[in-house]
Amino acid sequence: MTETIADIGEFGLIDRIHQLIKRKGVKLPATTLGIGDDTASFSSPSAFELLLTCDCLVEGRHFLSKFIDPFNLGRRAMSVNISDIGAMGGLPLYALISLGLKAEMQVADVEAIYNGFLEELNPFKASIIGGNITKVEKSTFIDISLVGRVETGKIVLRSTARPGDLILVTGFPGQAAAGLRLLQHSRPEAKLLKNPLVQAYIMPYHRAWEGSRIANSGLATAMIDISDGLLGDLGHICQASGVGAELNQDKLPISEDLKYFAEQFELNPYELVLKDSDDYELIITCKPENEARLSSVITSTGKITVSKVGRVTDKPGEILLLLPDGRQERLTPSGWNHFAR
Amino acid sequence: MTETIADIGEFGLIDRIHQLIKRKGVKLPATTLGIGDDTASFSSPSAFELLLTCDCLVEGRHFLSKFIDPFNLGRRAMSVNISDIGAMGGLPLYALISLGLKAEMQVADVEAIYNGFLEELNPFKASIIGGNITKVEKSTFIDISLVGRVETGKIVLRSTARPGDLILVTGFPGQAAAGLRLLQHSRPEAKLLKNPLVQAYIMPYHRAWEGSRIANSGLATAMIDISDGLLGDLGHICQASGVGAELNQDKLPISEDLKYFAEQFELNPYELVLKDSDDYELIITCKPENEARLSSVITSTGKITVSKVGRVTDKPGEILLLLPDGRQERLTPSGWNHFAR
Repeated sequence: MTETIADIGEFGLIDRIHQLIKRKGVKLPATTLGIGDDTASFSSPSAFELLLTCDCLVEGRHFLSKFIDPFNLGRRAMSVNISDIGAMGGLPLYALISLGLKAEMQVADVEAIYNGFLEELNPFKASIIGGNITKVEKSTFIDISLVGRVETGKIVLRSTARPGDLILVTGFPGQAAAGLRLLQHSRPEAKLLKNPLVQAYIMPYHRAWEGSRIANSGLATAMIDISDGLLGDLGHICQASGVGAELNQDKLPISEDLKYFAEQFELNPYELVLKDSDDYELIITCKPENEARLSSVITSTGKITVSKVGRVTDKPGEILLLLPDGRQERLTPSGWNHFAR
Repeated sequence: MTETIADIGEFGLIDRIHQLIKRKGVKLPATTLGIGDDTASFSSPSAFELLLTCDCLVEGRHFLSKFIDPFNLGRRAMSVNISDIGAMGGLPLYALISLGLKAEMQVADVEAIYNGFLEELNPFKASIIGGNITKVEKSTFIDISLVGRVETGKIVLRSTARPGDLILVTGFPGQAAAGLRLLQHSRPEAKLLKNPLVQAYIMPYHRAWEGSRIANSGLATAMIDISDGLLGDLGHICQASGVGAELNQDKLPISEDLKYFAEQFELNPYELVLKDSDDYELIITCKPENEARLSSVITSTGKITVSKVGRVTDKPGEILLLLPDGRQERLTPSGWNHFAR
C-alpha cells in the first residue's frame, strides 16, 4: 500500500506536512507565525540584519532521483541555501518551501524530503514557516527561500577583496564534480554510494558555522561559497571587487581521494580542483597579517581544513596560475552556466 | 533578430535583468543589499513585524502563454503575492524571484515579465533584491517570495473570526473563473481580451492598499484573500477560527457582466460567485457595531465596493446559504485542490 499525493489531495498533503513540522521541527518563538495563514510573520531580532536568499533544485538538472534518495535530497536542497547564508557570515532563521510535485509521488517520499530539511535546520533552531505546493507533470522542483541573520555591521561581501589580500579556501573543492562523474560512469552498486567523492556530491557540507565565526571575527575582507567551482567563484570575487588573483598550483588542496580519481580517469587533478564543482566550501580573503588568526577561527569548529592558495592582485579580472617551475598560466573563470549551448 | 536566453547565457541574462531593475525599479535604501552577492540583506523597519510568503505560477497549470502576454504574466505573478501580504494587513517590501525558463525563450519576453513585476512593486516602493534562474525543459515557472511589513500588533489573521461577526467581501468574486471559461470556449479574438471578465482573470487586482488600511483601523476580526473561491476561502476562515457561517444569497455581489455570462452559459450566477475562482478580493469579518466604519475605510481608496454577505456562527465548519424564501442550503467548501483526481 503506497499512498500517493493524488490519494490525499493538496490540502491533505499540506496538513500532513504541517503535522510533521510541528512534531519534528523546533518550537517557534512566540512572536513568529508559521504555516496556516496567508503569510508567515516574524519579528526581526534586534542588533541583526536579515539575509534573504533562494535556490532551486530541478529534477534532471540539479539532481537525478536514481542517484539521491528523498531524505538526502531534502538535506541537499536546504544545505545549499544554508551555504549562501553562511557565505555572508550569517546563520539561518526561517525557510519557505515551494515544491513542484507529481501527483503520483508517494506521500512518504515527500515526508522524507521534509525530514531532510529539518535535519539541516534543527541544529540552528531554524524553522519552516511557510510554502507552496503545486502540481507538475514532468520535472519535480524544490525551491527554498531562506531568511538568515547576521550581526549588524558584520556581513562579509564578495565585493570587498583588496590587492595584497591572501586567498584562503576551506576543505577540498572539486570532489563533488568527481563524485558526479563516478556516478555517471560506474555500474550502480551499493558500495559506490559510500565513496567519499560520491558522498561529496550527494551530500555536500555547508560551512555556515564557520562562515558565521569568520564574520564575527571581523578578520575577513571578502567571502563566497563555491557553487560554480573554485575558479568560477574566485572569478565572482574578482569581478565584484575589481581585482585579480594569483593562485599557487602547489598550494591547491587535493584530497587523496581526488588524486586517486584523477589517476584512474587520467585527468589533471589541478583542473579538477579549479573547474565546475558545487562543493559549498568557502573562499575567503584577508589581510596577510590576519591570516594565522583567521585560520584558527576557521578550524576551531574542528571540522575542516583551510589552505592558503594565493593572493589578490590589482589586475582586474586577471587570474594567474603560478606553476612550481616559475611559469604562469592565465585562467579563464568559466563557472556553471545553465543555458550555455 | 530575436535574441534567446541561449544566445546570452545564464550570466548574461542575470546581468541584463540586474540592469533593468536598476533602471526601472525604485532606489534601494542605503542599508539594503540587492542582487549580486550570495544573499540579499536588509534591516527590518522598527515598529514593524515582517511578513513572508511565496506563490508559484506554473505554465499549463496556472497560466497558458496563449492567453497572457509576458508583461501581464509578470504583473499577475507579483500581484497574487502582494495579495497575500495585503490579506494580513501588510504592504510589500522586498521580492526574490526564482524562475524556471526554457533556453529558447526570448530575452525580450523575460524583460517584459520583469517590467510586469516592477509595475506592481514600484507603487509600494518595494524592490527585487535577489533570485535564481534555472533551465527547464517543459513548463516555465515563476516562483516569487515576498517580504512585507505590518505595524507591530496590527496583523489580521484568518483564525480570529468570532460568532456574531459580520462577513464582508470586496468587489465581485467569481469573475475570474468566468473569464477563464470565456477564454476556453470562445474563438480567440482581440476584443475578447477587453471583456471585463477576461480582464478579471488575466489581471486580477490585489487589495493590499485596502488590506493595509483595514489592519491599521483595528476594526477587522479576521481577513483572507480569495484565491480558492469565496466559499473555499470562507471555509479556511471557519476552519482556522473554529466557527461556521451563514451567507445570504440575495446579498452576494453579482456584477452585471457575471449576470450576463451566467445567462449566456445557462449557469447559476450564485454558484459562480461562490465556487473556485481566483479573484484576489478580500473576505473580512468584523463586529456588527464596526461595520459602517470598516466599510468606509475599505471604500476610502475609491477603487472598490464592499458587500455585507452574512455572519459568523458558532457551528464549527458549517456553512449555510440562506435563500430569500426562507429555505437554507448546506454548502461544502471545496476550494481549488491541485492534486484532486
